[in-house]
Amino acid sequence: MKIEDLASEVGDWLSGDGPDSDIVFSTRIRLARNIEGYPFVTKAAPEQVGEIEARLRDAIQALDLAPDMTYWNLLESSELDRYFLVEQHLISKEHAQSELCRGIAFTRSESLSMMVNEEDHLRMQVMQPGFQPETCWAKLDAADTALAQRLPWAWSERFGYLTACPTNVGTGMRVSVMLHLPALVWSRDIVKVFNAVGKIGMAVRGLYGEGTQATGDFYQISNQASLGKAEDRIVHTATSVVPQIVSYERKARDALLGKKRVELEDRVWRAVGILRSARSMSSEESMHCLSLARLGVHLGVLNDLNLRTVNELFVLSQPAHLQKLESREIAEPAERDIVRAAFIREAVGGA
Amino acid sequence: MKIEDLASEVGDWLSGDGPDSDIVFSTRIRLARNIEGYPFVTKAAPEQVGEIEARLRDAIQALDLAPDMTYWNLLESSELDRYFLVEQHLISKEHAQSELCRGIAFTRSESLSMMVNEEDHLRMQVMQPGFQPETCWAKLDAADTALAQRLPWAWSERFGYLTACPTNVGTGMRVSVMLHLPALVWSRDIVKVFNAVGKIGMAVRGLYGEGTQATGDFYQISNQASLGKAEDRIVHTATSVVPQIVSYERKARDALLGKKRVELEDRVWRAVGILRSARSMSSEESMHCLSLARLGVHLGVLNDLNLRTVNELFVLSQPAHLQKLESREIAEPAERDIVRAAFIREAVGGA
Repeated sequence: MKIEDLASEVGDWLSGDGPDSDIVFSTRIRLARNIEGYPFVTKAAPEQVGEIEARLRDAIQALDLAPDMTYWNLLESSELDRYFLVEQHLISKEHAQSELCRGIAFTRSESLSMMVNEEDHLRMQVMQPGFQPETCWAKLDAADTALAQRLPWAWSERFGYLTACPTNVGTGMRVSVMLHLPALVWSRDIVKVFNAVGKIGMAVRGLYGEGTQATGDFYQISNQASLGKAEDRIVHTATSVVPQIVSYERKARDALLGKKRVELEDRVWRAVGILRSARSMSSEESMHCLSLARLGVHLGVLNDLNLRTVNELFVLSQPAHLQKLESREIAEPAERDIVRAAFIREAVGGA
Repeated sequence: MKIEDLASEVGDWLSGDGPDSDIVFSTRIRLARNIEGYPFVTKAAPEQVGEIEARLRDAIQALDLAPDMTYWNLLESSELDRYFLVEQHLISKEHAQSELCRGIAFTRSESLSMMVNEEDHLRMQVMQPGFQPETCWAKLDAADTALAQRLPWAWSERFGYLTACPTNVGTGMRVSVMLHLPALVWSRDIVKVFNAVGKIGMAVRGLYGEGTQATGDFYQISNQASLGKAEDRIVHTATSVVPQIVSYERKARDALLGKKRVELEDRVWRAVGILRSARSMSSEESMHCLSLARLGVHLGVLNDLNLRTVNELFVLSQPAHLQKLESREIAEPAERDIVRAAFIREAVGGA
């Protein structure tokens, strides 16, 4: 598979299907693993890093459960391609910027993906549209079990799986649920939600993970601790708050439909008008307008926009994607803003 | 003719035709006249006011040169109807608010119109699209001559025509040119234009005359003095600055097309996107967006919007027009904003 194919074929997690997908954009679980007998990535000698990469690559490519898995060594990819993978949520920014021998593997649907030699020797994740923690865990558990038959994971009786950062020790698990909460942002009740989420030991992040701003009214909540509990318990605890947030957001949306209908329709339609008309648009503005469009589709205020189109645009309108779609490097943000506006106009039937 | 007919049939001065009509919206000349032997309106007794109204009404209705003239006594009209006439530029706000016996006459094309018992016994005006001072003056002169055969105007050898306000003494003439100057506003050179215009004794006003704000980038320039010169000299002096302003605006537009093309297209198209999408829109915002749309049509940036539609919307989207078009009183501005947005969307092919 070539990276160009990824630009036209967006991952299934953007389909807009799945339980509660009007509010839960996607569910993601990842596991951190390290091969026994090697130092962690930052402490390993270059030849060890290369050896780790080779062993993991072989094990991943031999996986029966994912015959359509593609593996790339990132030393062979351009900077643009790596940022493209960041925008696809397939690799982290750190993994893109690293200079080590490292890799990325993913299935065609992008449901299962693996980073080799990021913070840990292996980070593997399963991402699904909507609220599907059990499905994610079942798929990921199967991949983990299959790999464990080929590789000895660093593990201690006392702590569980050993990881580069102590916060991941134990299960090496992080469960992340990406929520679209435009109505709670509008009503400003989002602050209460964050406070509540923080109190039960969950972290809140933006669309592109740790340290990123919440754009497009997307919030990622995830567990902070991965130690001392069985994996399925962590999945349960980390996601038990989600149905409550979903119900708050639904109530806030109902309130908009009731008391603020005109303002809601006005904001949604203006956003669509901008998406269909602008000749230059920053990434931030496009996220803002797409968020309102997504809300409008789900509330039945908009009926001539396809949900999958809107969902995909959140990813496709990002800088690296635009450059891949245009098949050229566009260094100037101002020029990207023009390309972005044209691409979005085309996608949403603009003038 | 009924007032309802005026709502669907907009005056020819909005046609968008006429010389330099990309920049000169309309040219208007008015004359102030008073009947000899009566006090000015504010000093006249009620029965005199009624007598003046009757004499003028008879003379106006007998005019051969305007057989399609409609005459209304404003005591018989509703407040809404009177504001409707203000928005059509047929009467002044003061004339709408007065409680005296007074009238308004206008031809079907609204080219020629007359206010009876406004500040003076008679105010008659001719309004034409584009830059047409000579045509305006020729038509107005003909009407004045015809009326003078039936009515003795208050006149003094020393001062000329006598008027209620000394600023109108002499010819009783005011020449007003309505200019659309979005590019000069954009480049901020508009201030220089105003200073230059002020120095040669001209006044600058907004779209709805004295004391009104300049909305939609429209500026009305008019002479301040009407004394000491023959009428055609005043027309000439008052309009001699117009070609220069027109050329400044053209240069500013060329600069936008050259150096700021993307920003220009972006602003114009966003404005159209808002006009086609918004569910609620204030009068001020609609004027702003219509101004950009008008600029876009004239610069060839927009090609799927009709110029006459845009020009008419400046008037049709005003509060009294919206209420007449809806055939009901809408007291709440918030409700008018909804009606306005729907009306504009419909007119510009919105979603």
